[in-house]
Amino acid sequence: MNFKFLRELIVPAQTKIVLLIMDGLGGLPLEPGGKTELETAHKPNLDALAAQSALGLTVPVAPGITPGSGPGHLAIFGYDPLEFEIGRGALEALGADFELGPDDVAARGNFCSVDAAGLITDRRAGRIPTEAGKELAELLQTIKMDGIEFFVVPVKEHRFAFVMRAPGLGDALTETDPQRTGVPALPVLATSSGSEKAAQFANRFIEQARKLLAGKHPANMILLRGFAGYPTLPTYREVFGLRAAAIALSGMYRGVTRLVGMEILRINGDAIADEFTALEKNWNEFDFFYLHVKRTDTCGENGDFAGKVRVIEEVDALMPRLMALGPDVLIVGGDHSSPAVLKAHSWHPVPTLLYSRFVRADGIPEFGERACARGSLGVLLAKDVMPIALANAGRIAKYGA
Amino acid sequence: MNFKFLRELIVPAQTKIVLLIMDGLGGLPLEPGGKTELETAHKPNLDALAAQSALGLTVPVAPGITPGSGPGHLAIFGYDPLEFEIGRGALEALGADFELGPDDVAARGNFCSVDAAGLITDRRAGRIPTEAGKELAELLQTIKMDGIEFFVVPVKEHRFAFVMRAPGLGDALTETDPQRTGVPALPVLATSSGSEKAAQFANRFIEQARKLLAGKHPANMILLRGFAGYPTLPTYREVFGLRAAAIALSGMYRGVTRLVGMEILRINGDAIADEFTALEKNWNEFDFFYLHVKRTDTCGENGDFAGKVRVIEEVDALMPRLMALGPDVLIVGGDHSSPAVLKAHSWHPVPTLLYSRFVRADGIPEFGERACARGSLGVLLAKDVMPIALANAGRIAKYGA
Repeated sequence: MNFKFLRELIVPAQTKIVLLIMDGLGGLPLEPGGKTELETAHKPNLDALAAQSALGLTVPVAPGITPGSGPGHLAIFGYDPLEFEIGRGALEALGADFELGPDDVAARGNFCSVDAAGLITDRRAGRIPTEAGKELAELLQTIKMDGIEFFVVPVKEHRFAFVMRAPGLGDALTETDPQRTGVPALPVLATSSGSEKAAQFANRFIEQARKLLAGKHPANMILLRGFAGYPTLPTYREVFGLRAAAIALSGMYRGVTRLVGMEILRINGDAIADEFTALEKNWNEFDFFYLHVKRTDTCGENGDFAGKVRVIEEVDALMPRLMALGPDVLIVGGDHSSPAVLKAHSWHPVPTLLYSRFVRADGIPEFGERACARGSLGVLLAKDVMPIALANAGRIAKYGA
Repeated sequence: MNFKFLRELIVPAQTKIVLLIMDGLGGLPLEPGGKTELETAHKPNLDALAAQSALGLTVPVAPGITPGSGPGHLAIFGYDPLEFEIGRGALEALGADFELGPDDVAARGNFCSVDAAGLITDRRAGRIPTEAGKELAELLQTIKMDGIEFFVVPVKEHRFAFVMRAPGLGDALTETDPQRTGVPALPVLATSSGSEKAAQFANRFIEQARKLLAGKHPANMILLRGFAGYPTLPTYREVFGLRAAAIALSGMYRGVTRLVGMEILRINGDAIADEFTALEKNWNEFDFFYLHVKRTDTCGENGDFAGKVRVIEEVDALMPRLMALGPDVLIVGGDHSSPAVLKAHSWHPVPTLLYSRFVRADGIPEFGERACARGSLGVLLAKDVMPIALANAGRIAKYGA
């Protein structure tokens, strides 16, 4: 189903949809035959909700594909992640809480070490401390040229986001990282004529950076990868007719929501409970709320099975506050799986629950991977969840006579 | 799977397929935690059949999309409803039992009220009685012009189907209904050059209608919407190699079956049992039978839960007659859901049963929404049911060596 088709069927309604995403929710047992993180968690509220919901397993991108956070989130937001793409550089800038705009071309940057002949000796500059990276980023931020603005945003250790801002820059640019040592950094080349101006500016920036960093060994040079322009995505208002708000503590998720036109709500504090408070405070102002819980994924990536269980239990304890608001439609799911046993994102389908007054409840009293596998939503593409939510919210008109 | 691919694999066989459609079959419980219409019905024959069948839930168009009868039926007939379309005007004419042909352009018409200045005061002419609408349609039927034939077929109250018949008419035409009162009716405009002749004829017809209706307040003017030509669909014989027959009491369903090349069987009477009698009488003459039960949908749209249950029970009681014929493949399903609690078509997937000697039976002894959610057909697109039926009927050859 494409957006043009859907857009023509969207009708207004006085209903509210909540999309509660526990990042990397799907898991695996520690031992064969055991329970996953979600199945292990004591979560009476989510289990009770499951009994009144339709359950299913969502496939973020395609069967067998492990998504990064960009495609994973595009999919749960209802966008086909194979049609819409957020380039790596753009994602890095968004993740650094940089307000990317339509005149921007972004790249992933990192400090590296070169010898007297300019040959790379360490592509990560010995992973300098974050504080050192921050100081060097400030130094590079002093580089100025006519007709363009540069932004150097520190990320972590040797990493930074690099952004060029000027009208008419293209992003068809090659990267400077040769992916090995003993050779010099490569020049930026334009792979289409519309990007030649951007290539020239990037190379001039690199040249000035080389001079500024000359005495700063081990971080005496930079590498730039993944050049990407501002991803133009249709907005939630355009496609779904929704006034949408985002509640997320991490920069990248806020950034992705900004791309789809969600308003980013202020959160007082950095606890999950503070996110629920933001939801309560803004309940009357929007049709749609995206609430993002990051720590399920962090624990999964750290191999912290028990920690991930505890985060799920923390969310469960907050569910009565969400239900007290009376959402017309509530989706609880994840953008991908991050099983603690794998310490990484994975391809496994994600347990998902869809609750509304008009849902055909499966009557399965458990929210878990195996329980969701028996649900009536079946195994479905993550991008197909939003249309079902909109239907339950009375926001899609009949198709055809 | 596209038709070109399928067509090359079709082989002949001496098998018979029955597609039994209870319109709007899928439902919802009256109260959360309750049973749906189908789950409530006492239906020992369908339940016994379910135990020997593969069960599943069909999605008519796409997740979250509520289909009208046109797309819903195209899908269960095996046609992708996003690829093939029956325009609103064409569907209105088919529904009025009008024999639409390839030289026709049809529209939905209605009588409306205008004041002395020609401004619309009531877009539905006070919903004049059906008998009055019929008389006025006959009056408009007297309008004649050289080079074209007009047909004005009364539908109900203020509604009629309007058909222009001449070679080379286009249907890229704007509607005359301004969708509000206090303004005049709009002229018909051609949105592509191939439709200019059709626009001129339509406007000349409207002008004559205005004169004829001048003294007929409140029905003293007409509005035309949803212009659509004859939908050219590949036939059942071309695509599936089937001699197909249709058993349906309502005009629109007969019309849609005519578009796909089914032969419409004569039914003596207007009871569901009479439809089964028509099936028995014609059993030897065709490979495929579509049998349509309308009243499940009528009850659903009227909010008559108990009535819908009774219609399902009536069908169940007739099942032994169908099974006595020994169909090689039998599909029991619906074109969409019409939960009584919603009093409308809905997006919910439709319980479906596929029986044949070669089906991998699920052994689930119940035909119901939740039972079908556990079935081995899974959640599938409605258009994918026909190829599975054909395979079970020995009508699809192996693909590739």
